[in-house]
Amino acid sequence: MSATRPSLKLTHEGALTMLAGALAKAKELGVPQNINIVDEGGNLLAFVRMDGAKLLSRETSLSKAITAASHRQPSGRLNPADAVNLQLAAGQRLTNLVGGLPIIIEGQCLGGIGVGSGTGAQDIEVARAGLAAIGADDQTP
Amino acid sequence: MSATRPSLKLTHEGALTMLAGALAKAKELGVPQNINIVDEGGNLLAFVRMDGAKLLSRETSLSKAITAASHRQPSGRLNPADAVNLQLAAGQRLTNLVGGLPIIIEGQCLGGIGVGSGTGAQDIEVARAGLAAIGADDQTP
Amino acid sequence: MSATRPSLKLTHEGALTMLAGALAKAKELGVPQNINIVDEGGNLLAFVRMDGAKLLSRETSLSKAITAASHRQPSGRLNPADAVNLQLAAGQRLTNLVGGLPIIIEGQCLGGIGVGSGTGAQDIEVARAGLAAIGADDQTP
Amino acid sequence: MSATRPSLKLTHEGALTMLAGALAKAKELGVPQNINIVDEGGNLLAFVRMDGAKLLSRETSLSKAITAASHRQPSGRLNPADAVNLQLAAGQRLTNLVGGLPIIIEGQCLGGIGVGSGTGAQDIEVARAGLAAIGADDQTP
Repeated sequence: MSATRPSLKLTHEGALTMLAGALAKAKELGVPQNINIVDEGGNLLAFVRMDGAKLLSRETSLSKAITAASHRQPSGRLNPADAVNLQLAAGQRLTNLVGGLPIIIEGQCLGGIGVGSGTGAQDIEVARAGLAAIGADDQTP
Repeated sequence: MSATRPSLKLTHEGALTMLAGALAKAKELGVPQNINIVDEGGNLLAFVRMDGAKLLSRETSLSKAITAASHRQPSGRLNPADAVNLQLAAGQRLTNLVGGLPIIIEGQCLGGIGVGSGTGAQDIEVARAGLAAIGADDQTP
Repeated sequence: MSATRPSLKLTHEGALTMLAGALAKAKELGVPQNINIVDEGGNLLAFVRMDGAKLLSRETSLSKAITAASHRQPSGRLNPADAVNLQLAAGQRLTNLVGGLPIIIEGQCLGGIGVGSGTGAQDIEVARAGLAAIGADDQTP
Repeated sequence: MSATRPSLKLTHEGALTMLAGALAKAKELGVPQNINIVDEGGNLLAFVRMDGAKLLSRETSLSKAITAASHRQPSGRLNPADAVNLQLAAGQRLTNLVGGLPIIIEGQCLGGIGVGSGTGAQDIEVARAGLAAIGADDQTP
């Protein structure tokens, strides 16, 4: 029996670097975004809401980040037939919206990045820029 | 008129024995799980989240356990056309996801076991192992 | 800038070992307890409610565990004059009740154990037995 | 009658500059902090949780920021005898804890900064550094 296991945590510097990388991509695309970085426990590490981003996308983008961290895969991969059932049963933070990506480094999931206020494709592109900023794995196809 | 009726309650030792049985099966399958045992009132008796289990499946698996205890039958037997309506009306703990089984002993429902983070079939198999550990009835087909 | 930092996580085996150690002490004292183990993010890892434990102490004991994990010190050390203000501002999971202890190993806080249904002194004694079961540091005076 | 009035809004660049200024001060003090910047509507603009900051101070520090933005003055100036009544009536985001400062520029309140995980004096000092980073007024005595 081992009571502990070694793991990696994302630092706040890492989270802010991700935020900056995602922000730069959103500016390049010309689309204001909500950008959330959460740790493996689903707790917020860093956030920015850009000028003109949709206010309510704050919550959807946070759900995307938590979903990606929880499931260790991009959000949007649930069976559509189950999505509403799962979301209600999970207390609503589980979402099947795209725009959430897990933060995977050295094979470990350290948390998630969730982006929302653009189109799904824009949200994903901005989230990927966040991963790239710290050299995290990118599991998008 | 009788003001009282005798009943059976699951002990915490029974709940922990179920937890251990389900955990052993999950290890054998190689799938990390959230495992919940609730009593007839839907209140948690015992719980474990295995290393690597999905964080948000904590809530879905609890909902499965409460649903099975409430309806005295395996979760997942609602008419799919009614499932979301029922879930919303019930305050979200009623779910049609599979992986929740009632704990039935001597014809009485003593609570439910709810498992989540694997496939539906894996969740059910792990829940059944929990029932078997205390010799509870197994109503799965 | 380093995006990651090494850390330790509590395994589910470690959490269940803590649960068993705390349970044994509660039996020895003859006081039924709710026992919660949470990780550093405040998310539940393992739980048991003993036969006869107070139902509502489920929530208070969870708050104790989360508080100890968050503050990295035993619960009950807030300035009493601030306790209600802090609790309300923190969304109620922050508590000044005693019976929550941080799980500290090799100088790192891996989570918290929270116990409730007995007297404060009994709750602390049971929580300490949980720490002792895995050789975690004990910061109680 | 005029149906509109001109106003100033804090940009996300302004919010991130405040975040960086507060973060630098927290590092200088050697105290990990939760730092929140909210707009005049009490909605989050930017956030960071530093490595080692108390998890539950996330919520208390957000409450401080919202309180300062709402009342256009530093948090902690309520009559202590009224504080709990006001907090409950306000739905819990109103707090009398110190560490929240209004963001005032050209006589207008553009939002609030809320800091938490240190002592009250440290929280205030870090919040002031956030104001200084964008040349906002500092109303602390």
